[in-house]
Amino acid sequence: MAVYTHLGAEDLAELIGHYDVGDLVSAKGIAEGVSNSNWLIETSGTGKGRERFILTMYERRIDVAELPFFLGLLDHLADAGCPVPRTIHDREGASFRLVDGKSVALIEYLPGVSVDQPTPQQALSVGKALAQIHLAAGNFAQFRAQSLGLAEWRRVIEACGADALASIDPALPNVCEAELDFLADNWPSDLPQGVAHCDLFPDNVLMLGDEVSGLIDFYFAANDYFAYDLAVTHAAWCFERSTGAFRSDIAEALIRGYEQERRLSEQERQALPILARGASMRFISSRADDWLNSPQDALVVHKDPMEFVKRLDFYKSCDAKTFA
Amino acid sequence: MAVYTHLGAEDLAELIGHYDVGDLVSAKGIAEGVSNSNWLIETSGTGKGRERFILTMYERRIDVAELPFFLGLLDHLADAGCPVPRTIHDREGASFRLVDGKSVALIEYLPGVSVDQPTPQQALSVGKALAQIHLAAGNFAQFRAQSLGLAEWRRVIEACGADALASIDPALPNVCEAELDFLADNWPSDLPQGVAHCDLFPDNVLMLGDEVSGLIDFYFAANDYFAYDLAVTHAAWCFERSTGAFRSDIAEALIRGYEQERRLSEQERQALPILARGASMRFISSRADDWLNSPQDALVVHKDPMEFVKRLDFYKSCDAKTFA
Repeated sequence: MAVYTHLGAEDLAELIGHYDVGDLVSAKGIAEGVSNSNWLIETSGTGKGRERFILTMYERRIDVAELPFFLGLLDHLADAGCPVPRTIHDREGASFRLVDGKSVALIEYLPGVSVDQPTPQQALSVGKALAQIHLAAGNFAQFRAQSLGLAEWRRVIEACGADALASIDPALPNVCEAELDFLADNWPSDLPQGVAHCDLFPDNVLMLGDEVSGLIDFYFAANDYFAYDLAVTHAAWCFERSTGAFRSDIAEALIRGYEQERRLSEQERQALPILARGASMRFISSRADDWLNSPQDALVVHKDPMEFVKRLDFYKSCDAKTFA
Repeated sequence: MAVYTHLGAEDLAELIGHYDVGDLVSAKGIAEGVSNSNWLIETSGTGKGRERFILTMYERRIDVAELPFFLGLLDHLADAGCPVPRTIHDREGASFRLVDGKSVALIEYLPGVSVDQPTPQQALSVGKALAQIHLAAGNFAQFRAQSLGLAEWRRVIEACGADALASIDPALPNVCEAELDFLADNWPSDLPQGVAHCDLFPDNVLMLGDEVSGLIDFYFAANDYFAYDLAVTHAAWCFERSTGAFRSDIAEALIRGYEQERRLSEQERQALPILARGASMRFISSRADDWLNSPQDALVVHKDPMEFVKRLDFYKSCDAKTFA
């Protein structure tokens, strides 16, 4: 949550000059995104009044070679009518440019706010929007392997080491080891798949009232089981922020919204409990890694891996009926 | 440069509901301000289309008891036609409210960008705008003592201690001691005074082309010599960002712009070299304090106190003709 790079007005005006969007009027660094810097840009527009855009500078984690995938995906989904921001192309047609050796993209600004305490109606809208991108991604021509799958969760947990994990919570090393073994033995095969968002937390959904106005931050998107993406979204949305309690009303609405657009097969529904365990493990591993290996300070609020241990415990006690 | 407090969409919508500005449409935490959190807010407006505002939450350093001064000053200057953002008052007429025990204010959004490499024409506009606020502040009814004056610079430097200062640069302890003594012996008395901005760095000026569209961040404003405020602005604007070289063309334009609105007295002009030394000392002391006493990490870029030692050296070699 920061702006990692200083871009002065002169740099920004020069950059904006390569796009057909009018002149720079305002630029505010915004506190969004953990692996990139973002500015909310206002321009004089091209005849219909001022326009706004998000300017993203890719700082870390994101490989430039993958930008055509991420940015092409936004355009593909927007063309299909999904609520995702389009990439603005420069006058030469490029979807990203280089500034100071870093890649930057100009992206459509969408209105909306991220909710902390979703209502069932909002969860229903999120379920629908998620299914819409799954359907629309079906004929997207590019492929990106899932780099944050089962093998990576294990690699990260082993790299952290049992002693370090125990410093977070004494139970954590055993929980992880047992769960990784269980998942390896029981991970489903041959479910319907395609490009999935894989990180659809409330932070990454913009809403206007009860409706989704934007799905954003596709930088973990990868080819994976659609039902895994639904499981990630379930794990991200269906627990009270303050108490961690499971919200069956939110969960029911999320799945119902999803199925209004795309019916789950019986095989997918049966797999959801283990996929949700996998989703929990995915965030346990990345949060434990961040907790142990990135600097702690007042400005970076580390997310507690134990939150997802609690969600994992919940999913261990579930069966497919929980996802009906 | 951060958002220190999480305010969810629900909190923000509830807050915005107390103002006559329409419904919340968007909220982006912005990376501005070091002692407060800021959001760029968009609302549905009240009939003429969407409107934007800056929402500021006062986190540190700012005493709630002083908010009526700071916010009243904005309204006073805006009423007088100065390019400063107005405070939006809530339906009960209050200029600030409490959220989670912290004060928040809704402030007019102004377009414009902060420049890194000002042109002389831009410096002229800044000089004019600074003089305008000095003239307009003349009949502002409130008073705020200068808490960051000579006595405070000495207190901060002594609290840092010679050893710590020497860890920044071996010469720093002696430079500070000699300069503080010199300033104490030579600080002018009886110059024209009133409310001054006291922190008018390029970051705190919004520009559209060559014109000032907004002066912002008045949270160091205090009653002081107007010529000291001009000296602060001189020290902040007239040196190359990259090399530290003095830019006589910028300096000349700044003073010329100022004098287009408010003539300096001969006494003020004669005092400018020492006031500029004082301005340098003011930023040496606060930067040294931040350097030594606030956490160093990737997200807080500490400003180098030695930058202002170089500017101090420059001002030691000046006389009033430098400011003609």
